Amino acid sequence: MNDENLSDLTILLKQANEAKEIVSTSSLEQKNHALKAAAESINDSRETLKSANDIDMEEASKKDLLDSFIDRLKLNDQRIDSMISGIYKVIDLNDPVGQITNKTTSPSGFLVSKMRVPLGVIGIIYESRPNVTADASALCLKSGNVSVLRGGSEAISSNKAIEQCMIEGLTSAELPKNSIQLLKNQDRALVAEMIKRDKEIDLIIPRGGKNLIQVIAKDSSVPVLKHYDGLCHVYIDEMADFKKAKEIALNAKTYRYGICGAMETLLISEKISSSVILEIINTFKDQKVEIRGCEKTSKNFDISLANEADWTSEYLAPILSIKTVKDVNEAIEHINFYGSGHTDCIVTEDEKAKEVFLRKVDSSSVMHNLPTCFADGFEYGLGAEVGISTDKLHARGPVGLEGLTSEKFIVEGNGQLRA
Amino acid sequence: MNDENLSDLTILLKQANEAKEIVSTSSLEQKNHALKAAAESINDSRETLKSANDIDMEEASKKDLLDSFIDRLKLNDQRIDSMISGIYKVIDLNDPVGQITNKTTSPSGFLVSKMRVPLGVIGIIYESRPNVTADASALCLKSGNVSVLRGGSEAISSNKAIEQCMIEGLTSAELPKNSIQLLKNQDRALVAEMIKRDKEIDLIIPRGGKNLIQVIAKDSSVPVLKHYDGLCHVYIDEMADFKKAKEIALNAKTYRYGICGAMETLLISEKISSSVILEIINTFKDQKVEIRGCEKTSKNFDISLANEADWTSEYLAPILSIKTVKDVNEAIEHINFYGSGHTDCIVTEDEKAKEVFLRKVDSSSVMHNLPTCFADGFEYGLGAEVGISTDKLHARGPVGLEGLTSEKFIVEGNGQLRA
Repeated sequence: MNDENLSDLTILLKQANEAKEIVSTSSLEQKNHALKAAAESINDSRETLKSANDIDMEEASKKDLLDSFIDRLKLNDQRIDSMISGIYKVIDLNDPVGQITNKTTSPSGFLVSKMRVPLGVIGIIYESRPNVTADASALCLKSGNVSVLRGGSEAISSNKAIEQCMIEGLTSAELPKNSIQLLKNQDRALVAEMIKRDKEIDLIIPRGGKNLIQVIAKDSSVPVLKHYDGLCHVYIDEMADFKKAKEIALNAKTYRYGICGAMETLLISEKISSSVILEIINTFKDQKVEIRGCEKTSKNFDISLANEADWTSEYLAPILSIKTVKDVNEAIEHINFYGSGHTDCIVTEDEKAKEVFLRKVDSSSVMHNLPTCFADGFEYGLGAEVGISTDKLHARGPVGLEGLTSEKFIVEGNGQLRA
Repeated sequence: MNDENLSDLTILLKQANEAKEIVSTSSLEQKNHALKAAAESINDSRETLKSANDIDMEEASKKDLLDSFIDRLKLNDQRIDSMISGIYKVIDLNDPVGQITNKTTSPSGFLVSKMRVPLGVIGIIYESRPNVTADASALCLKSGNVSVLRGGSEAISSNKAIEQCMIEGLTSAELPKNSIQLLKNQDRALVAEMIKRDKEIDLIIPRGGKNLIQVIAKDSSVPVLKHYDGLCHVYIDEMADFKKAKEIALNAKTYRYGICGAMETLLISEKISSSVILEIINTFKDQKVEIRGCEKTSKNFDISLANEADWTSEYLAPILSIKTVKDVNEAIEHINFYGSGHTDCIVTEDEKAKEVFLRKVDSSSVMHNLPTCFADGFEYGLGAEVGISTDKLHARGPVGLEGLTSEKFIVEGNGQLRA
């Protein structure tokens, strides 16, 4: 790698680690002051932000980029409004830092408790959405962490302008301006280098498509907060309220096809009557959802035959696979084998089937009588969401501010000695 | 790698994952029954265990091994007793599995809570101590996890005999015998392969020296629970009770030189009088502890001069580095720069200095008026310890059963739909 480029990253990380000492113990008032001032600065800088974005849009229009990519890149007043309201939502969140829990007296008579503390330096690697610059840095700051932001090169002008607003917020609150830093050098080799800096970065959060996440997770020596797939299931039990079941299944699939919480496979108890199943199938057909069924379903109803790949496909599209299963146990087996450990739901009025399903399904969220599309930090009452994790260690499921912190032991003695 | 060897691992991991489904939801009674029966089987098999160990000892004696290695390999009645009492301690622990916490009502009116669940399959990689076979598998079983054990090849006969006792316990409780499996194929390439099996193993715990841990952490794609160094500090503040300080420092160093919680560097406020410092130095000299001082200390007292390497050395020996610092802030800076994030202590009667130190020192355990050698799961009241983690994510500090579990979201609705 080019030495000069490398030195850009090295300096930035050194500055981040210096800022860390102050940010990690700054007060809630100071952090909220900075966030409020940043939101105000964004509001006052609308024209600057839109001009900066025009440059990015102009450059992007010359390249062969997907319309959806260009759309995500766009900053207009509505999106600026939502960046601002996003920051105000973060201001409203409780500060997890400094919370003391689990205070007990040890066998030798000293006090043991846990204190919640920031992780330190968090690296955010994202693609074309410029709003991530504000959203992610606000969440990091609120949880006492320093952020290092590496946004997509197509959004560099927009990101620089937003970073400037965030820094104005920091300065107004007398917090170190290096608490939020955009890596402006766009050398892609620096991303590969950044994820190796486990002495200087405590957590990497990739925000973007599956490819980005896979590449980062594979090569990173820094821990990565991630999820790959959202292959979500709804199981309709024979003891379900069928009206409810139909509505839940439809909402789980059609609320938005492209989200990770969208249902991809519908499991149906074989004890449910053909007329009910037909009604469910027709509901989806009415919505122009293509249905692919297991051998039995495709034989009994007018739908195409699913192949093995269908049970592992996250369609993110108006396609649904349907399988009949013997009972709740076969449903659980199917989910634990084919699923991605994201979000899975049982629809039933039977307490026992519910209990078994909730305990045995090994996913980050297990639901009862709810569409899987509810899998979201805001919907869960976490206030805001850093991301969704399907890893089992640290944070699992929608991750709020707590996922950006850890707990250290506080051990208070009075001169006790170990014998 | 040899195909046959690889297939041994593949079969074992397949069996482990099949057993997981049952063990993860087995009852507390069933797990305790299995543990009690295993302890009884170990007690009844003393002669078998000692004979198996004789074979290992005989083989080991032919090799060029360190005495300390041979000592750790030895199984005698006392060590068998302590394996048995270790299992009874695990029986006494609370079962974390199934605990429901943080129950709240979401903005849309459904219930959100967290359920504590086992991780799944845990791989333990260890060196010559055969007792780890019983200790680690008991902790995994109690927390609803399946264990895959890869012990050092020198202890293979002993490990097989202990595994047999654990399996008798499982069988007696009608739990799958594959819930605890020793990898008997000793091909070292299988260890490298095992730590790549992130689809089948949820956590790797290396138990052994720093080299083992480093190699595993570097190459593992499975998360690793680990700590490298225990470079622990005691800081004596000018507001310390000096009698207490002297005793704490002495105990922190001399309780046992070889443990990770042993103090390696003593920091002393420069406002403390020479006579007090001299008394502290002489206390260590009386215990034949070699002292290496910073420039100022070595000039003022009859001790050798420390070099830069001393501030980063985990001696694990009767050697101590001493440095005078301006105040609590310089002590914190030194610790956060040179320390290993393990355990650090302030000795003071000043509430403000204590508060600053406890908040700002970025270590897994931060202590007040206590020797660092207390850093231990049992001493903290966790009942037993899986290990100590200096990582910030997931579990930090001494790790009890909770560190072998994670929490999933339980989301209970009543047919609410997302609009």
